[in-house]
Amino acid sequence: MNVPNQLSANEALEVISGGKLSVSALVQSCLDRVEEREPTIHAWQYLDKSARLLEAQACDSNPTKKILHGLVVGIKDNYDTHNMPTRYGSPIYDKNRPAADAAVVAQLREHGAIIFGKTVSTEFASSPPSVTRNPHNTGHTPGGSSSGSAAAVADNMVPISLGTQTLGSVIRPASYCGVVGFKPSYGRISCEGIKTLAESLDTVGIFGRSVTDVELVYRVLSKTAPAELDGYEGPVALALCRGPDWDKADSDAQSALEKFSEQLRAKGIRVDDFRLPDSFKDLAAATRIIHDMEMWRAFTDERVRNFGLISPELQIRFENASRLTVEEYEDAIEKGIKGRQELPGLLRGYDAAITLSATGEAPAGNTTTGNWIMNSPWSLLYTPCVSIPVLQGRLGLPIGLQVIAPRFDDAKALCVASWLHRNMNKR
Amino acid sequence: MNVPNQLSANEALEVISGGKLSVSALVQSCLDRVEEREPTIHAWQYLDKSARLLEAQACDSNPTKKILHGLVVGIKDNYDTHNMPTRYGSPIYDKNRPAADAAVVAQLREHGAIIFGKTVSTEFASSPPSVTRNPHNTGHTPGGSSSGSAAAVADNMVPISLGTQTLGSVIRPASYCGVVGFKPSYGRISCEGIKTLAESLDTVGIFGRSVTDVELVYRVLSKTAPAELDGYEGPVALALCRGPDWDKADSDAQSALEKFSEQLRAKGIRVDDFRLPDSFKDLAAATRIIHDMEMWRAFTDERVRNFGLISPELQIRFENASRLTVEEYEDAIEKGIKGRQELPGLLRGYDAAITLSATGEAPAGNTTTGNWIMNSPWSLLYTPCVSIPVLQGRLGLPIGLQVIAPRFDDAKALCVASWLHRNMNKR
Repeated sequence: MNVPNQLSANEALEVISGGKLSVSALVQSCLDRVEEREPTIHAWQYLDKSARLLEAQACDSNPTKKILHGLVVGIKDNYDTHNMPTRYGSPIYDKNRPAADAAVVAQLREHGAIIFGKTVSTEFASSPPSVTRNPHNTGHTPGGSSSGSAAAVADNMVPISLGTQTLGSVIRPASYCGVVGFKPSYGRISCEGIKTLAESLDTVGIFGRSVTDVELVYRVLSKTAPAELDGYEGPVALALCRGPDWDKADSDAQSALEKFSEQLRAKGIRVDDFRLPDSFKDLAAATRIIHDMEMWRAFTDERVRNFGLISPELQIRFENASRLTVEEYEDAIEKGIKGRQELPGLLRGYDAAITLSATGEAPAGNTTTGNWIMNSPWSLLYTPCVSIPVLQGRLGLPIGLQVIAPRFDDAKALCVASWLHRNMNKR
Repeated sequence: MNVPNQLSANEALEVISGGKLSVSALVQSCLDRVEEREPTIHAWQYLDKSARLLEAQACDSNPTKKILHGLVVGIKDNYDTHNMPTRYGSPIYDKNRPAADAAVVAQLREHGAIIFGKTVSTEFASSPPSVTRNPHNTGHTPGGSSSGSAAAVADNMVPISLGTQTLGSVIRPASYCGVVGFKPSYGRISCEGIKTLAESLDTVGIFGRSVTDVELVYRVLSKTAPAELDGYEGPVALALCRGPDWDKADSDAQSALEKFSEQLRAKGIRVDDFRLPDSFKDLAAATRIIHDMEMWRAFTDERVRNFGLISPELQIRFENASRLTVEEYEDAIEKGIKGRQELPGLLRGYDAAITLSATGEAPAGNTTTGNWIMNSPWSLLYTPCVSIPVLQGRLGLPIGLQVIAPRFDDAKALCVASWLHRNMNKR
């Protein structure tokens, strides 16, 4: 058996329910890993070690048949938690103590999980970089905005964490950190109790080290039936989607995806070149307009009462957003509706679409969390997106393959991603 | 000049900016009205009289050109407020003090308004009746869930208040209380900082005593251009929409609408009998499914940690909702998407649709907040809906006429409603 902190969620749950591992031992192992690595990675915004050990002991004294009994989960610090401070990545909320748990945090607890701690979020889950470093190379960003959640899972501090995606804040950090990231269909999981960034786009996301783990947590939060990953026999046809912003991807990332597609074809899977219609070219810009307008209005209290506590980068972004018109915003909303109408027909006959999860490897330094252009159109299209770490770039850093299905076909996206992750050579 | 508390919002702003009325005098007048009537009406959950007078004095010492300078607004107690307790209509939140204002509360303050106090909401803005009474006849319900906001405006305690509509919680209480109620297009106004009931349906609503007043506040919150109500010359053609649940309306309400339509025709307005396609018959049930599923998941923390503090009525509702399947939920979501695609084409050629705002007069007693069946399909269709008090029932209580336009045609709905309210005989 691996040391406990290295176990997958499903492995940990199995050995715990089989009496071969105590919840306390799992929690202690994760705490030890944090103790060792946190000074380098900076994944955690809040972590109360003794409280978590007490909670684990309580779990051990009262074993249950709950599906997530004893599972250790990290929660991005833009989710409200009734027993932990919740900072939303901003000094404005240094003293914030929410009255209640976000809906999904409460769901996790209801099903037996231990909320381990709060992971670092960028400021208001927006673009300014956080302190978190990429476990694969600490000179590089882990991506954002779910920086701490992606890094904590990648570094074996926890098997599962939650993040949020508005533009590309789950799939991109999953890509950079070499973990599995899943952004379910918009609306599949409640966003209650998550600090609103852009209501038309905000989506709960899940990080894990396997698709099987991520599917388990997804199923609990969404109330859907099991996706039957094990029985799935692999895709017949995939749409290799280079657009709409393929030219913004690095050449090594492009090559890695092309090569991966050849390997798929060698396995007998049909991989068609797939072009989105020209109308989809506007979607990234439309997503940005929706994001900026909704963010601008959602943060009125912070802008008005605490402007000086907002970072200069975000201050500028708010000022630019203030110039957007309602006409631009509603045109963008309509583009999203139209794209969502068209997409299922375009993907008919394919098991899923595949593309890059990010434009390339994690950028060096800490001046950016990277480019979300490979993600934001899909955020607006409300599709399920899974990132699996099967590609790599010129520096040997991970790059994710993004698997996409039409809205509400989450089970299909998970099946395809799981099969590819298990059956294709990993990077 | 009317006594200050009876002034419309536009009148009050005009006399304040003209130096003919101080903000302090307006606030004092509203407080006096509350002092006199609150023991009968029970519209307020929280009201700090001395703090509001101090705030009014500060406004008077520092006159601004802000568009809402000195306007007094009541806020439903499911909106977060940084300086007032926020109870969400539930004893679970007796000690809740939010860290920030809801986005629209902050927007109102930014534009110079005074947040007067928090109005009574039903439990979690859901169906259990509140303590508030109908100013037109205190033996009757004011409707819900925005009970206090509707009653406070009807009773001249404040000129403007905010509520929320998920199924029918703005248009129905506006109808029962004889005031103007406006539910803008879904998504036009930020819901940040409002306690989530059902994310796919929750909408900010505005109560006032004229459409002009409501339009002013709407314009500030939505950033839209003025609707040009004064220049509007009246509708040419209206769709008299009896469906999809016309048979659930009381006969006196049906007759009142028929008679009103005749009066419109007598003024030369074309009023066509308009039938929604059969597919729209399912929308009320679909709305209820979406509401129940999203409510069930949003209130997981309350259900798990504080079930005993939830009313028996809502406990049962949660238990019923727990049996809904994801398939039923997503079928309902798809029905809404399809209805929203079809509606604009169906209404082409009409200035607006008209129907009843409620099934009849406010029910007597306090065992129900009334039936939302005339509202919930439009909530799912994301349309702007305006209720104007131009009808009445057999007991002489008000009944609203509901004016509806396609999503994002809010200006048209407001223009038609304003014209009808000003040009047709009031009840």
